[in-house]
Amino acid sequence: MTRYPCEEEVLKQIRPTPEERTYIRTMGKRLIEAVERSGMAKAMMVGSVARDTFVRGDRDLDIFMLFDPSLSREELQEQGLALAHRVAEEFGATWREKYAEHPYVNATINSLDIDLVPCYAVESATKIKSAVDRTPFHTRYILSHIGDYADDVLLLKQFAKAGGVYGSDHMTEGFSGYLCELLTIYYGGFHPLLEAAARWRPGEVIDIEKHGTKEFEDPLVVIDPVDPERNVAAALSLSRMFEFAELARGYLAEPSIEFFCRPDSPPLTREVFTRLLAARGTHLFTLTFKTPDYTPDTVVPQLRKSAESIRELLERSEFAVNRIDVCMGEERCMLLFELMNETVPVMRRHIGPPLWSRGNAEKFLAKYVREEVFAGPYVEEGRYVVEVPRTFTRAVDLLRSRTLFEVALGKHVRRSMKQGWTVKVGVECWDEEFAEFISRFLARSSPLARIMRRTGK
Amino acid sequence: MTRYPCEEEVLKQIRPTPEERTYIRTMGKRLIEAVERSGMAKAMMVGSVARDTFVRGDRDLDIFMLFDPSLSREELQEQGLALAHRVAEEFGATWREKYAEHPYVNATINSLDIDLVPCYAVESATKIKSAVDRTPFHTRYILSHIGDYADDVLLLKQFAKAGGVYGSDHMTEGFSGYLCELLTIYYGGFHPLLEAAARWRPGEVIDIEKHGTKEFEDPLVVIDPVDPERNVAAALSLSRMFEFAELARGYLAEPSIEFFCRPDSPPLTREVFTRLLAARGTHLFTLTFKTPDYTPDTVVPQLRKSAESIRELLERSEFAVNRIDVCMGEERCMLLFELMNETVPVMRRHIGPPLWSRGNAEKFLAKYVREEVFAGPYVEEGRYVVEVPRTFTRAVDLLRSRTLFEVALGKHVRRSMKQGWTVKVGVECWDEEFAEFISRFLARSSPLARIMRRTGK
Repeated sequence: MTRYPCEEEVLKQIRPTPEERTYIRTMGKRLIEAVERSGMAKAMMVGSVARDTFVRGDRDLDIFMLFDPSLSREELQEQGLALAHRVAEEFGATWREKYAEHPYVNATINSLDIDLVPCYAVESATKIKSAVDRTPFHTRYILSHIGDYADDVLLLKQFAKAGGVYGSDHMTEGFSGYLCELLTIYYGGFHPLLEAAARWRPGEVIDIEKHGTKEFEDPLVVIDPVDPERNVAAALSLSRMFEFAELARGYLAEPSIEFFCRPDSPPLTREVFTRLLAARGTHLFTLTFKTPDYTPDTVVPQLRKSAESIRELLERSEFAVNRIDVCMGEERCMLLFELMNETVPVMRRHIGPPLWSRGNAEKFLAKYVREEVFAGPYVEEGRYVVEVPRTFTRAVDLLRSRTLFEVALGKHVRRSMKQGWTVKVGVECWDEEFAEFISRFLARSSPLARIMRRTGK
Repeated sequence: MTRYPCEEEVLKQIRPTPEERTYIRTMGKRLIEAVERSGMAKAMMVGSVARDTFVRGDRDLDIFMLFDPSLSREELQEQGLALAHRVAEEFGATWREKYAEHPYVNATINSLDIDLVPCYAVESATKIKSAVDRTPFHTRYILSHIGDYADDVLLLKQFAKAGGVYGSDHMTEGFSGYLCELLTIYYGGFHPLLEAAARWRPGEVIDIEKHGTKEFEDPLVVIDPVDPERNVAAALSLSRMFEFAELARGYLAEPSIEFFCRPDSPPLTREVFTRLLAARGTHLFTLTFKTPDYTPDTVVPQLRKSAESIRELLERSEFAVNRIDVCMGEERCMLLFELMNETVPVMRRHIGPPLWSRGNAEKFLAKYVREEVFAGPYVEEGRYVVEVPRTFTRAVDLLRSRTLFEVALGKHVRRSMKQGWTVKVGVECWDEEFAEFISRFLARSSPLARIMRRTGK
C-alpha cells in the first residue's frame, strides 16, 4: 500500500508512541485483573485502545465488566457500581458515577480517563439486554478483522476529526470510531474508501457479512457484522455523509496535510460580529436558558427539537427563517435563529373552509361577518379567506411569550424554560460564552470550502 | 310556481313594460326587413331581446345577418360591413365599426344600442366557422325551451348582477346570460336552481341533451345543447361559482330584496384609505401604464397574466404577497400588489446542486469558494447552499427595474410598459381615477358577507 508523503507525516504525529501504548495497555491489564480478582465478573478492554486504533494523546481507556446475564437490572447496577467503586479506590483514583443507558464509573488515574462499565456477558450480539452489551462483540470483531489496517484507521479518524465529521453524538451526527473501522476494512484501506466515498449516493448499503435482514431509510447503511438488524451508520446525517464525500474528492484531487489539521480559527470579536451581521442585513435572535442537568446525548436532541418547533412557529407566524442552530454550554443553552424579517403587518390572512363544505362554510361566515376584520370573508380558489389582526407583529414579542410552551419542546428544555429564558436581538446576541458557536454560525462553510480558503486553492 | 313577495316586487321593477317590449321588438323587425330587403343575407334577432329575457332598461338589440357559408372570410367581412353601414344609414343612425372575432357595426338609434353582426348561416352549431355563428343556434334553442321560465330568468339575471357574478367577460369570470337561461331550464326555475346551487361541488356536470363527448376540467360544466364539445360555463371561475352558491344559501335562508339590489357603496376618500392602509400595516404598490388600444377581452387577461408573473417574481425575491388585482381604465391600467414586507436583507440564500451530482457540485464549489460570499458553500440536506448578496433589497426598486421584462407579460402590456410605467408606494397609491377599484380591493368581501353587513343580519 502506497501512502502519500503527507500521510506518513501525519502518521508520525498521531501514531501512539510505543511507550504510550505499553503504558496504557499495561494499565488496562491491571484493571482487568483487579476486576476479575473479585470473582464477580469477567473484564475486557474495549474501544480504540483495545483495537490499537487510538490516536496519540487519546487518554480514554474503556474497561467493560461482563456480568452473568441471569442478574436482574437492579442487581447488575448495584454489583457493577460496587465493583467499579472498589477497583477505582484500589487504584487511588478520583471517580464519579455517570449515566448512559445505565450507570457506570468514570475514574481518572494518572491523567488517563477511564470508564468502568458494567454489562451483561450475553452469548451473541443479537441477544443483548442493553446497548452496552454489544460493545465487547464489536471489539472482538474488529480485532479479528483489522489485519494491517490500523494505520489506515488512524488516518481516517484524523481525517474525519479534522473535517468535523467524527463522532456519532447528536451534536456531530458524524462517523463513529467503529464505523470508521468497518469502512476501512470493507473498502480495503484509507485510499479505496476515499475513492468510494467520492462516488457515494444517498442510500448506499454496505453489508460486510451479507446477513442484513432489515430495510433502512438512512442515507448510509452499514449493517453491523455482529447484529444483522442494526445500522452502524444510523446516527450519520445526510449532511455529514456528504461533507465526508466532499473532503474525499478534495483530498484525492490535491492530497495535503491540511486535511488532517483541525482548523484553528479563533472566534470573531464583538466588533467583527457586529459588522458582519450588519452586512448580512438579517435579524438574529437568541434564546438562552439554564442547561438541564443531563448528558449531551439527552439534551442536544431536545435542543434541536425545540429549535425546530420554534422555527415552525415563527414560519407559521410569517417570520421567514434563514437558519437555526443550538448549543449546549456548561451553564446555559442557546437556541439561535436568523430571520429574514423581524416584523410582520398587523393584518394576517386566515384561510377558512372550502365553500362546498357547507356547514363549516356557513359557520365561518357567520362568525367573521360579525367580527371586526380588515377584509373578508371573501372567496379565493373556492375557499373562504378573512383578513384579521394578529397578536404578535414583532418576532421578539413572540419569542418572549408563553406561546412557546404551546409547541413541542423537549421535556427537560421545557422544564428549564419554565424557570425563565432570555431573548436577545441583533448585536445584543453576542455572548462571550458562546463566541465560538455564534462565529461558526455566521461563517458557516463546508469543511472543504474552509480548507480551500485556508490554503488559497 | 310560488314566488316570494320580494320576487314579485323585483319583477315589477325589472320586467320590461309592454310598451318597451313592443317598441324594441318593432325596431328589431324593421331592421330585419331592411337587411333581408337587400337580398344579400337573412337576418334574425338574437340575445335577450329575442328570447324575451331582457331586463327593463336594457337598451341592447342584437341583429345577426346570416350570409352564405360559401363566402370567403374577406367577402363576408366586406359584404357584411357594407350592408350594416347601409342599414344604419337608412335608419339615420350614428354608427361605428367594432372588432370582436371579426368586425361588426354598432349603431345608436333612439338611444337603443344596436349591434349589426355579420355571420355565416351554417347548418348546425357544430359546423360553425367562427364563434358568432353559434349565437343564432343558442337563440333558437332557448326560444323553443324557455316555456314559462322568462320571469325566472329575469330574476336569476338580476340576482347574479346584484351579486357581482353576472357576465362571462374576463374581468368578471361569472355567469353569461345564455348560462343563466340554460340553468333555469335545466333545474326547472329560479328556486330549484338555487336549491341545487347551494349544494354544488366543484366539477358539477350538466348535460341537458345528454350528448356530451368531452371531459372538462372546469369547476362547472354545462354542455352546450347545440354543441356537444363545448362547455357553456368555461369562463366561470371557481370563486364566482361558489359566490353564487353562497348567495343561493343566504337567499334561501332569508329571502329579501337586498339580494337583487346592486350595492351602492361609494369609494373611500383618500383620508379613509390612508387610515385603513395604516391599520393593516401592509405595503401597497401600484404599477400604472397606458391602456393598450384593444378590447377588455384582449387586455384584461394580459393584465392578469402580467400581475401573476410579477407576483411570482416578487415571491422568488422573498417579498411575501398577500393579494393582487388589476384594473383596465380608459386611459391607464393599474396592477395592484399588497405585500407583507417591503424590504429583504441583502443576504439571500442560493441553493446549489446535491453533493452526489459530482460534476455540478464541484463546479459550484469552485465558483463560490472564490467569490465574496456571506457564508458557504455549506452542506444542508445533502445540497450545497451559499449565502450571497442580492440586487434588490426594496420591492419598489425591483418593480421599477427592467427585471420586469424578464417575466411573462402579455404582449400588449409589454409593449405599453416599454413606453414607461409608474410605481407608487403606500399612501401614494391613492389615485382618484382608480378610487373605486382600490376601495373594493381594500374592503374585499364575498357578496353574501356584504349583504349580511348591509342588512345587519
